[in-house]
Amino acid sequence: MKLVLHGYFRSGTTYRVRLALNWKRLAYETAPVNLVEGGQRAADYLARNPQGLVPALEADGRILTQSPAIIEWIEETWPERPLLPADPFERARVRAFAAAIGCDIHPIQNLRVMKKLRADHGADQDGATAWARHWIETGFTALEQMAAHTGGPDGFLFDGGPSVAEIYLLPQMFNARRFGVDVSAFPRLVAADAAARALPELAAADPALQPDAV
Amino acid sequence: MKLVLHGYFRSGTTYRVRLALNWKRLAYETAPVNLVEGGQRAADYLARNPQGLVPALEADGRILTQSPAIIEWIEETWPERPLLPADPFERARVRAFAAAIGCDIHPIQNLRVMKKLRADHGADQDGATAWARHWIETGFTALEQMAAHTGGPDGFLFDGGPSVAEIYLLPQMFNARRFGVDVSAFPRLVAADAAARALPELAAADPALQPDAV
Repeated sequence: MKLVLHGYFRSGTTYRVRLALNWKRLAYETAPVNLVEGGQRAADYLARNPQGLVPALEADGRILTQSPAIIEWIEETWPERPLLPADPFERARVRAFAAAIGCDIHPIQNLRVMKKLRADHGADQDGATAWARHWIETGFTALEQMAAHTGGPDGFLFDGGPSVAEIYLLPQMFNARRFGVDVSAFPRLVAADAAARALPELAAADPALQPDAV
Repeated sequence: MKLVLHGYFRSGTTYRVRLALNWKRLAYETAPVNLVEGGQRAADYLARNPQGLVPALEADGRILTQSPAIIEWIEETWPERPLLPADPFERARVRAFAAAIGCDIHPIQNLRVMKKLRADHGADQDGATAWARHWIETGFTALEQMAAHTGGPDGFLFDGGPSVAEIYLLPQMFNARRFGVDVSAFPRLVAADAAARALPELAAADPALQPDAV
């Protein structure tokens, strides 16, 4: 299947999809959409994704959008090297961890929300950064507790190696560091992030290594 | 299986889970968590869900959190009356519709975010409502386009009756009306909302009909 990933090197949701594709050892082309220059609002991109958000994954010409949907699709289409456990209750725990990032942290500290905060509510750069930090720290505090009794000595969040939980954690940890969050307050999350980034497939998805990185 | 839904009648994420449980014709108890009185921060609730967010679903004493994870678990555990199509690509389209609400609209207009906007960024009631409307209208504009070529004459968003897409749409449409969004600008979404609410199982999940409704 020919896969083309439309996204931006620093976008957390694009980073998630790269991690999933790399873990499954799938080859794909990168089609950069420059969010800083408004590439997501260009007519040709909006024709692919009316939301005007990245990423979009083109699979033999058909378009998939929304990283949570794309990641489930990858898992269903290529079940080898699973990113979700087999047991339904365990799957729910992994998905809950992912959703606590994907719904309750990432979207609230996203670029478009911080832009709106500055444009309409008088926040300056520091105010916008404090907003982002607040939501990351609130979320990480709960995630640290959720992960306190899961996983094993290898550092991963759940048994059996990296899962969808790490797919969401790595980009959020990247953002946390970018916004100056003191991540040492979350040792369980730091350990899982390090364990996952030590794997060559996942390390290769790092934003700095992408063709559009600046 | 004994199911207890911990949630709040007006919470959109609790409403989603009620819709899914009702559609599957599963019996459950309701355990109200009063968000206005801070019930989500009570010690006994935090022991169930460190995030301090609703809902939490207790299943034979085991706790599941995060509505996206709970809904997938319900679908995997009770596959009859499916809420997702069988084909992986179609599943991805339904999930993308749901995620466009669950990630990109709902969390940004959630009570805790609007409280933060008022507390730290000087927004008054009108400013907070305008914020909520902005994210709902932005999201609905894209969803209206995403749904333009899906579904059939019965009004549902995708073929085969109500799906996870309606499970997310109904609560968001409820919030849209509450915040004074002119939903007539989104006729496709209004039609799907009406088609789903005409079904007795889904109608019974309406916030106003819950035991803790005030």
